[in-house]
Amino acid sequence: MADIILPIDLHNCLVEAAYRKRGYTPEEAQQGARFCQLAAWHGIKTHNALKALHLDDHFGSGNKASPGCVPGATIIRKPSKFEASQKWNAQKKLGQAVAVEAMETCIKLADKYGIGQVSVDQAFHYLWGGGYVMDAAKKGYIAYTNCTAALAEVVPFGGKYPTLGTNPHSWGFPTTDAIGYPIVIDWATSTVAMGRVQQFKREGKQLPPGCGVDKDGKETTDPNAVVALVPFGAHKGYGMALINEIVGGFIGGSLPTIRSRPEAAAKIGPGGTEKTTPNFYFQVIHPEALSCGHFAKGRDQAGNIKAVLEDVLGHGNKDTGKCMLPGELEHNNAMRSEKAGGLIFTEAEIGEFAQIAQQTGVAFDKASLKPVE
Amino acid sequence: MADIILPIDLHNCLVEAAYRKRGYTPEEAQQGARFCQLAAWHGIKTHNALKALHLDDHFGSGNKASPGCVPGATIIRKPSKFEASQKWNAQKKLGQAVAVEAMETCIKLADKYGIGQVSVDQAFHYLWGGGYVMDAAKKGYIAYTNCTAALAEVVPFGGKYPTLGTNPHSWGFPTTDAIGYPIVIDWATSTVAMGRVQQFKREGKQLPPGCGVDKDGKETTDPNAVVALVPFGAHKGYGMALINEIVGGFIGGSLPTIRSRPEAAAKIGPGGTEKTTPNFYFQVIHPEALSCGHFAKGRDQAGNIKAVLEDVLGHGNKDTGKCMLPGELEHNNAMRSEKAGGLIFTEAEIGEFAQIAQQTGVAFDKASLKPVE
Repeated sequence: MADIILPIDLHNCLVEAAYRKRGYTPEEAQQGARFCQLAAWHGIKTHNALKALHLDDHFGSGNKASPGCVPGATIIRKPSKFEASQKWNAQKKLGQAVAVEAMETCIKLADKYGIGQVSVDQAFHYLWGGGYVMDAAKKGYIAYTNCTAALAEVVPFGGKYPTLGTNPHSWGFPTTDAIGYPIVIDWATSTVAMGRVQQFKREGKQLPPGCGVDKDGKETTDPNAVVALVPFGAHKGYGMALINEIVGGFIGGSLPTIRSRPEAAAKIGPGGTEKTTPNFYFQVIHPEALSCGHFAKGRDQAGNIKAVLEDVLGHGNKDTGKCMLPGELEHNNAMRSEKAGGLIFTEAEIGEFAQIAQQTGVAFDKASLKPVE
Repeated sequence: MADIILPIDLHNCLVEAAYRKRGYTPEEAQQGARFCQLAAWHGIKTHNALKALHLDDHFGSGNKASPGCVPGATIIRKPSKFEASQKWNAQKKLGQAVAVEAMETCIKLADKYGIGQVSVDQAFHYLWGGGYVMDAAKKGYIAYTNCTAALAEVVPFGGKYPTLGTNPHSWGFPTTDAIGYPIVIDWATSTVAMGRVQQFKREGKQLPPGCGVDKDGKETTDPNAVVALVPFGAHKGYGMALINEIVGGFIGGSLPTIRSRPEAAAKIGPGGTEKTTPNFYFQVIHPEALSCGHFAKGRDQAGNIKAVLEDVLGHGNKDTGKCMLPGELEHNNAMRSEKAGGLIFTEAEIGEFAQIAQQTGVAFDKASLKPVE
């Protein structure tokens, strides 16, 4: 089945309508739609609009008893004596809207201080972390973000019970002048995501080794037996997943095993309720703040990065056809979207958009959409 | 053979004498010795005094034609318009001395701005990155450092030729109030170090899968066939190794494949010589700059971190006896040194210290040293 092209305007109109129908403000809806658009443009299937809206249904405004996301919430900027740092209480505002604003704030701080940070408490899942750092990198900045993931699905190295999130890290580097696109390093700290396990289950295939454990905490490659994930790279990935929990803990995050589970949090001991919200951390560095001004052979900073990256991919590495730069796949996907003149979705995904159109009353003529050639 | 206890004073006296004999200033010698002491105290065999002095012999002041490290060099602080950032030309000053000063500077910046960074060009290997972040963490700060490693020994994911260093990352967190010691996450981005491959070769053992490649870039578990290493965790570890090259490239670092090889650099094309020095990046965050001030159940920040870490290690994880926190091993080693009342070395290592004593004229009575009980 050929992939189908969804025009950006129609996509955003649908997604904005879906957010507004849930009670989000026009600005929130617009920021949410824009990041869904960016994800789809770069081929990020795991964090497109359909995922974003599902997430809101399950953990966000859709949880009527104890919503993880509150339409129209305002960010409280806590006073800080530290000039290059801001700390925010997001009051469960839509994650994408908070992330966009936090990254913009970090950029302003980096312009003055060379580096700036924003930490966010009481947050709701911001979806594609790579999108925010890519955006900042396209504006010329080095950007980093991490967050504590919604659910504790990952077993610490040497342990047997999942107490960590898939806790992602995302870095973006302003390498467009050097190589034509920003380098974006963006991954979960589990070897694979739970969605991948489901996919293997559906396809009746065995998992690669080192992905998951069974109910006794023993490694298994049987997707039907997997109940929890393991960190990538043994103790190293475990350490990286732990960083997010520690940073989250310094900001104001609570126990990872009850995150996004308000019903579980209320049951834990006396002395008030545990918090169940994730945390965000954002940081931006101005590349000029790093430059010591002396590059070999009279190169400028961008020329120097180009030379370094050419050396890394040189010596026959690029010729293998398998050696890439992080961000290259996303860039290739963006080129494909550019060529198609819109966002590329599968027929099944387009079917889901048609449902959203029906629910929101947006005109949507499936037959008029063109396939990717 | 029992391990032997070397009193700290004698160790530092020997190491300082060795550095001074090479022409380093008393202050450099003292800073160098102090970090060798810290490494040995925490059981870091790979970055103790013997390694430090070997390194200086091979790549540092010992390379008379083109020294990688210059005794008595002074750091040039380049002007910066960015208030929370400093950029230094280390002029090949002793790595440990530069790192100590850079971390102190970052702490001062973090006190004012909440976050501070120092980037260093024209550096020389600082050895144990974990030591600097541990030191800052013991003082109450969140600290991070990375550097570009001396040699390109690591093949990028999907490639076949080594163009990356083992490029380490080190994070330290001020968790002493919470758990009794700082969490320190500190590792190379290769699965194993080249020293480990040599060890397998000596012992006639096969390597675990995913460690090294042969001359054709094909994975092998035969330590005799290994010519280059691979990143841990496939594309994820590759991305992490790349970060150091990119950050180094923004600072002023040159091609990774000629790093620490001045003789090779001179041969590369017209238009001047490539640089061959590594780069450092340091960053410190004040934990108060992160705190949004609302921790569940009335906990304070340290109490909150304690609760988070107990949750991570709870649910039966700690009971496996194999689930630890990063930094716990180093802490246990420090307890062992504390109990022994000195630094613990093997008999072979003590033999090398005896040679240093002979070369430097420091009184050293091997027979008077006590074994570890």
